Amino acid sequence: MKKIVLDCLGGDNGLSAMLAGAITALRENPEMQLVLVGDASVIQPQVAEFGDRVEIIDTKVNIAMDEHPTQAIRTKTDSSLVLGLEQLKKREDCGAFVSAGSTGAVLTGGFMKVGRIAGVSRPALCPTLPTMKDGQEFMLLDCGANMDCTAVQLVQFAVMANEYYKAMGVDNPRIALLNVGTENTKGNEVVKEAYALLSKLRDEKLLNFVGNIEGDQVFHGNVDVVVADGFWGNVLLKSIEGTVKFVFKSVKNVMMSSLGGKIGALFLGGKLKKFKANKMDKTNATIFLGLKKAVVKMHGNADAVKVTSALQYATTVVDFDLNARIEAALTKVEPLLG
Amino acid sequence: MKKIVLDCLGGDNGLSAMLAGAITALRENPEMQLVLVGDASVIQPQVAEFGDRVEIIDTKVNIAMDEHPTQAIRTKTDSSLVLGLEQLKKREDCGAFVSAGSTGAVLTGGFMKVGRIAGVSRPALCPTLPTMKDGQEFMLLDCGANMDCTAVQLVQFAVMANEYYKAMGVDNPRIALLNVGTENTKGNEVVKEAYALLSKLRDEKLLNFVGNIEGDQVFHGNVDVVVADGFWGNVLLKSIEGTVKFVFKSVKNVMMSSLGGKIGALFLGGKLKKFKANKMDKTNATIFLGLKKAVVKMHGNADAVKVTSALQYATTVVDFDLNARIEAALTKVEPLLG
Repeated sequence: MKKIVLDCLGGDNGLSAMLAGAITALRENPEMQLVLVGDASVIQPQVAEFGDRVEIIDTKVNIAMDEHPTQAIRTKTDSSLVLGLEQLKKREDCGAFVSAGSTGAVLTGGFMKVGRIAGVSRPALCPTLPTMKDGQEFMLLDCGANMDCTAVQLVQFAVMANEYYKAMGVDNPRIALLNVGTENTKGNEVVKEAYALLSKLRDEKLLNFVGNIEGDQVFHGNVDVVVADGFWGNVLLKSIEGTVKFVFKSVKNVMMSSLGGKIGALFLGGKLKKFKANKMDKTNATIFLGLKKAVVKMHGNADAVKVTSALQYATTVVDFDLNARIEAALTKVEPLLG
Repeated sequence: MKKIVLDCLGGDNGLSAMLAGAITALRENPEMQLVLVGDASVIQPQVAEFGDRVEIIDTKVNIAMDEHPTQAIRTKTDSSLVLGLEQLKKREDCGAFVSAGSTGAVLTGGFMKVGRIAGVSRPALCPTLPTMKDGQEFMLLDCGANMDCTAVQLVQFAVMANEYYKAMGVDNPRIALLNVGTENTKGNEVVKEAYALLSKLRDEKLLNFVGNIEGDQVFHGNVDVVVADGFWGNVLLKSIEGTVKFVFKSVKNVMMSSLGGKIGALFLGGKLKKFKANKMDKTNATIFLGLKKAVVKMHGNADAVKVTSALQYATTVVDFDLNARIEAALTKVEPLLG
């Protein structure tokens, strides 16, 4: 099994959370091997029990959440993020890199240090979001990294997501294209072209393309993947976040505007807060699809429990050899997209 | 004062609702003059008291909600929608047309029969949406009529909305551009170009352009107008609608999953329903911006009260001479957009 590199300094909770999460993961997964990047003087005494299953790359330098990504990657060459990504890049025995650092820095670092799969212009951001059907989520990609996508890029997103779902044990994921209507004549020029290409891949039995999906249907739980240009995908993602906040704030105002409402709120308040936290918070770990090796981004506020689960997630991705499979799948569909 | 043409057959509630709304409007506004298009044998006896303030164009033919817009406009030449739009087009003394018919048919009919302002490629759909600040709404345009907009088209939307707000008594509306970040370097090529053009108009003191706005900020209530391509605007609008439904359904599930929740729901249920109905339902009357004369679309289920308010809204628009002012404003900015 390949090693997983963990950035122990990124994120809001710092070294202690990362280390606690890593220790639990090592105990629960006897085959797991980690490369921990961070302050060796703190890490070393705590991981002695794992012997050579743990390597340490020593640094105290972190890239902060508000630093300019490209500049930070270029200048802070001794940061945990850069050192960790370099391990992933140069070592055959390392399969994934996991970090809770800023999205921009992890994405840019992955892009600059690890490199893209041939033909992919930029890796895609691909969070998963909840739906009305219990346990059914959908993946949205891209949602911010790629502007002015071509139809071929949209198809690449679909192909990458398809391999990703296979890695997660879903064999025939339902892939939809974000559009303003369901008919194939709807949408702008890029989307209409992407629709035709995706239909071709469906006819060749390479993808389970289920057609267009509108912005109000994504929550119905009938598709696994929603493909979008980074611009529209970002509009969709942010408007969902904004609307959730808006509705919750408004519901709170309604509750507080009358005695009946206040009594109702007493019984409900905690439950709604819990729902909001569970269901609408950003998913813990996300992979950037389109890089040569797996780069996994945790939420900035990831605690020890989430670090453990992100390391297990990275293991699944590496075991499946996801990135190599994506590269092979993209090569296979290329002749069909000309 | 110019006459307002009312389509008395369009919409879910038909002639009786339209007529009742028109009668109230005529009573409340002694200067209002209407051209009612519908079944004269029903209308005539009920409007006798208004004498020559009311004209009737007799027809029993309606365009149904599910008919193909272009085909219906072409073939049903004796429908209330087509006859009404023709009155608006050909008569100097008619200033606006109001209908609760299908959005597609009213938009297409306005486009084909009344015609666009020179240089506007398609009229924009521009609903207003609520925000977290009481009484503060924002207008979103375009949100579905225009795909693959150029930067100049986006600027035209801003100019049209600016004149519209002036008609509504807001002198210096805050106009924002939908984007994926706030900096002027963010976004796709069209948006970056539109940002530069809008900044130019702001520098010339022609528009109060306040910069980019992200999908999660539209509810903050800090802007009056959000400018978007019809594709992204539609994604934004529909995802807002879908998210509201999703959150309400989920809140209901949380309520019903425990005794405390059920008790809370008893106190809250009706209030939340009322909030949802008041705040998140589509606005009653919307104008299509970019036509030579005012075409006002009511919600399909408009009742008598909403018909009255739509007729008063149309009166405001006509009194301000909105469409002529938009045409003049577009002509004025044209040299700056080259």
